[in-house]
Amino acid sequence: MPDGTAPLLQRQDCEGGVTRLTLNRPDSRNSLSFAMLGALRHGLEEIAQDPRICVLVLAAAGPVFCAGHDLREITAHRNDEDAGRAFFDAAMHRCAEVMQAITALPQPVIAEVQGVATAAGCQLVATCDLAVASEAARFCTPGVDIGLFCSTPAVALSRAVAAKPAMEMLLTGAMVSAAEAQRIGLVNRVVPAAELSEATMALARHIADRSAHAVQLGKAAFYRQRGLPLAEAYAHCAAVMTDNLMATDAEEGIGAFLGKRKPVWGR
Amino acid sequence: MPDGTAPLLQRQDCEGGVTRLTLNRPDSRNSLSFAMLGALRHGLEEIAQDPRICVLVLAAAGPVFCAGHDLREITAHRNDEDAGRAFFDAAMHRCAEVMQAITALPQPVIAEVQGVATAAGCQLVATCDLAVASEAARFCTPGVDIGLFCSTPAVALSRAVAAKPAMEMLLTGAMVSAAEAQRIGLVNRVVPAAELSEATMALARHIADRSAHAVQLGKAAFYRQRGLPLAEAYAHCAAVMTDNLMATDAEEGIGAFLGKRKPVWGR
Amino acid sequence: MPDGTAPLLQRQDCEGGVTRLTLNRPDSRNSLSFAMLGALRHGLEEIAQDPRICVLVLAAAGPVFCAGHDLREITAHRNDEDAGRAFFDAAMHRCAEVMQAITALPQPVIAEVQGVATAAGCQLVATCDLAVASEAARFCTPGVDIGLFCSTPAVALSRAVAAKPAMEMLLTGAMVSAAEAQRIGLVNRVVPAAELSEATMALARHIADRSAHAVQLGKAAFYRQRGLPLAEAYAHCAAVMTDNLMATDAEEGIGAFLGKRKPVWGR
Repeated sequence: MPDGTAPLLQRQDCEGGVTRLTLNRPDSRNSLSFAMLGALRHGLEEIAQDPRICVLVLAAAGPVFCAGHDLREITAHRNDEDAGRAFFDAAMHRCAEVMQAITALPQPVIAEVQGVATAAGCQLVATCDLAVASEAARFCTPGVDIGLFCSTPAVALSRAVAAKPAMEMLLTGAMVSAAEAQRIGLVNRVVPAAELSEATMALARHIADRSAHAVQLGKAAFYRQRGLPLAEAYAHCAAVMTDNLMATDAEEGIGAFLGKRKPVWGR
Repeated sequence: MPDGTAPLLQRQDCEGGVTRLTLNRPDSRNSLSFAMLGALRHGLEEIAQDPRICVLVLAAAGPVFCAGHDLREITAHRNDEDAGRAFFDAAMHRCAEVMQAITALPQPVIAEVQGVATAAGCQLVATCDLAVASEAARFCTPGVDIGLFCSTPAVALSRAVAAKPAMEMLLTGAMVSAAEAQRIGLVNRVVPAAELSEATMALARHIADRSAHAVQLGKAAFYRQRGLPLAEAYAHCAAVMTDNLMATDAEEGIGAFLGKRKPVWGR
Repeated sequence: MPDGTAPLLQRQDCEGGVTRLTLNRPDSRNSLSFAMLGALRHGLEEIAQDPRICVLVLAAAGPVFCAGHDLREITAHRNDEDAGRAFFDAAMHRCAEVMQAITALPQPVIAEVQGVATAAGCQLVATCDLAVASEAARFCTPGVDIGLFCSTPAVALSRAVAAKPAMEMLLTGAMVSAAEAQRIGLVNRVVPAAELSEATMALARHIADRSAHAVQLGKAAFYRQRGLPLAEAYAHCAAVMTDNLMATDAEEGIGAFLGKRKPVWGR
């Protein structure tokens, strides 16, 4: 149990280029207080600039993955002179910044979802490039239950999940099982609770063993081309492929493949 | 059986803020004649302006949900001086208006699909925010069988269903079962025929019990942000969230949640 | 086994308006050499202009469907004066041209996938309008294994498959079974290996039996409206529907349907 001196966000640099960021506010269901969002933004900025890190795993301490915004903090700010508007605006923009920082992070991000992920917590899962869930994990966007539609979570959810299942989650607030979350595309894999970290880390190490240069260039190209008209998407990605082919990792990787040997990536 | 004096579209205002609109032309397989499209447009306009209505259920009388455009009416207009062009143009635009009016309706719309939904009838289902289908329901876009590709249904279908299954429906015209429709995202739930209305109404009442203000603001934000670049989508929805937080329903809802009591929404 | 005089691409015009193009470089796993891409581009241009062809089936000789770009050819061009940049650029643009030519082809294109489809080979499958796979077929985008992220395949993959499963394929390079490929929307149907050609040809003939005019107009409208804002998509497709209704095939098809007789399409 973290005490008052434990950091909101724990960073652990593991072997092989995998770093873990763990939401560490379990007493508050890892809710995204303004300070937690700030810690996430700062943590992501540091990781973005660290060339030793190949893959980021986003995990959470305690039984809940993340319960979304901190409703006690929001309520406290209703006593502000402006009834909270400036704080709400700052919190919503900081939250949107964090989500976009995950997408813009050079390294792939894998959510390791051990428990319930609700509202902006579900949005975090939808935003990560990949997600591995425990069989015990569950997902919902229950803003409608408290008069606060999950509009920003809808941005991420609707880019991961088809329109009708996304709308059902948003309009009903109903809990979705891990198996259903996989079926609709919200998570990639579902594993027994006891195997969650092992499975997530194995996936992370598998990616971290590949060329970091190619992985980072590809992640950026994926999001850049999405939503572009087809001709523009191809023009962009064909140029990316040519640059990729000119880089040393591709020369090494193709040479190793043709020579039936293991490639050695530049770092 | 409706006689000549029965309305094309029956409206029923139920308890708890749920209204039903029932396509009532079963002898013509509820086909979307010019008059039926006019009735739908008018019915949606009235509902949009009625603050007592929280959720709309779109249902159909008889064994068929909706067979699409009225081919006898279309054929009759081939005798017009312009061989029908002005009428066809008016009918297609009115149909597109009705579909967009469903998306633009402040209230969520749930399709209750008891039977076959073909062509523009399948488009109606794809267009509704949610859809509950009987196990007896089936779906197809068989325009190719009559030399009239379902191009306008493709607009709705391709926004609900992934490209390859959408293309298969459009290019083959083949019937899709309710279970398959659920698998590809065309409907949310499949229930036994005898339980269809009960299941649909329970879903409608569940949503109608939530804050109508939050639900309506959220539905609009969902469609507004869809298709926008990520940064624009977040800028829009973060502003919506701040406005939502300033509204009385969110203050009441969050207060009730923290106080472990039932919220009372403003109407 | 093709010898040096066998064409890279075999064209077979079958009865009923179905043409087959078969990648015929099995010794090189049907890889997309610069010459193969040229043959594909030329073959597609010819088919586009041939009014007798209603549906194209894209198949492959040997055990592998297509292994993507020709890595030996790429490596040989590293000895060019510019270390290969001009060739890589030409190859990537030609490949993107071929993929866009499939989408732009008036006729529907069905991939008949008998074996492994990797990298740009997987992109070919994702790009075709429909795909039928043998139970023996498998799919991957393993560029990360050789330091060359599958950025151009991502353009097609992300337009066929939801974000998280697409990202998993791209980031891990892992093989996906035919059943999983169907689940995520990469292929339409999976059949036993011995029934693959029969099933694909039956699907092709089913479509070729419909009005070629309506099918071609509809395929073009499908891709044109995709990605447009809803109002623009409807404006475009409503105009297409009116034109379609004015054409002789629709008059014949609707007349035949109402008269309960078989339609006779104009060719």
